[in-house]
Amino acid sequence: MASKRPHITLKAIGTVRNKVKEPTREGWEKVVSDIVIDESLSEALDGLEKFSHVIVLYWMHRAAGQALTKVHPQGNQKLPLVGVFATRSPKRPNPIGKATVRLIQRQDNILKVEGLDAIDGTPILDIKPYIPDYDSARNVRVAPWVTKL
Amino acid sequence: MASKRPHITLKAIGTVRNKVKEPTREGWEKVVSDIVIDESLSEALDGLEKFSHVIVLYWMHRAAGQALTKVHPQGNQKLPLVGVFATRSPKRPNPIGKATVRLIQRQDNILKVEGLDAIDGTPILDIKPYIPDYDSARNVRVAPWVTKL
Repeated sequence: MASKRPHITLKAIGTVRNKVKEPTREGWEKVVSDIVIDESLSEALDGLEKFSHVIVLYWMHRAAGQALTKVHPQGNQKLPLVGVFATRSPKRPNPIGKATVRLIQRQDNILKVEGLDAIDGTPILDIKPYIPDYDSARNVRVAPWVTKL
Repeated sequence: MASKRPHITLKAIGTVRNKVKEPTREGWEKVVSDIVIDESLSEALDGLEKFSHVIVLYWMHRAAGQALTKVHPQGNQKLPLVGVFATRSPKRPNPIGKATVRLIQRQDNILKVEGLDAIDGTPILDIKPYIPDYDSARNVRVAPWVTKL
C-alpha cells in the first residue's frame, strides 16, 4: 500500500492575521484573529454570519516536514509517549489544524474570530459552519493524560 | 492577494473501506467503516484506542475540481442559496471532509469506526482524538435552515 498513497494539492483560501507571531501552547482562548479570505471567494461566505461558531481548517506551516511517529502531548515529558495521531501535536504527517471557534463578525471577506490557535500568517484551507448534531459527540471517553493538560 | 495563495501538497495516510460505493446524502449514522492506515504509520496510532471518538479529515475526491460559490444545502431547492463555506457541501475549494465518529476498535493499522460519511476508497488525510473541551462549543446558534435538514 505504501506505493499507493495519493498526493493531493491544495490552494490556501486565505490567511490568519493576529498578534501572535511565534508558536505557543497556551493562552489562545482570548486571542482575536482576522481570517482574511481571498476576495475572489468573498461570496462563498454569505450566510456564515448566521452561525455562532465555525470550524477552521488551517495549515500548520511551521510544522511542515517535521512529522514524528510518537510524541509526549504538549512536549510534556511527564505525560506518556503516544502515537502522534492520538494527540493534537502539529508534528503530524499532514499538519492540518482543526479548531472550533466563536465567530464574532463577518465583514465582506474577513471573519473575526475568538480562540483560533494559529499564528499570524497561517494559511487557511477551509471554513465550515459548526453544527452540534454533526460535530459534537455524546458519551465521550478520553485518554487519562488529557485531564492532566 | 489572489496571487499569493500558496499551494500545499499532502500525501494521504490511508483509505476508507466500507460498503458504500457511491456518494449519498443520508443513512451514514450506522455505516461501519475500516480506516486502513498505511502500515508505515501504524505506531502513530498507539494510544488512540483510549478515546471513544475520533476526528477524521478526509479528501472528498469525487468533488475535486467541482467547487461552487453558492449552493442550496443538500441540493434542496427549498432551502436558501448560501455561500459554500456556510454549508457542509463537498463542492468547496478544498474538498476536505471533517467527521466526528465513534471508534469501535483499533487493530494495528486499522480503525473500525461508526458513522463516517465517506465512500469506499476515500483518501484519509488525518486522524485526531476528539477532546470535548477543545472540539465542542457551548451556547451555539445555527442558521434557521439547519433545523430543516
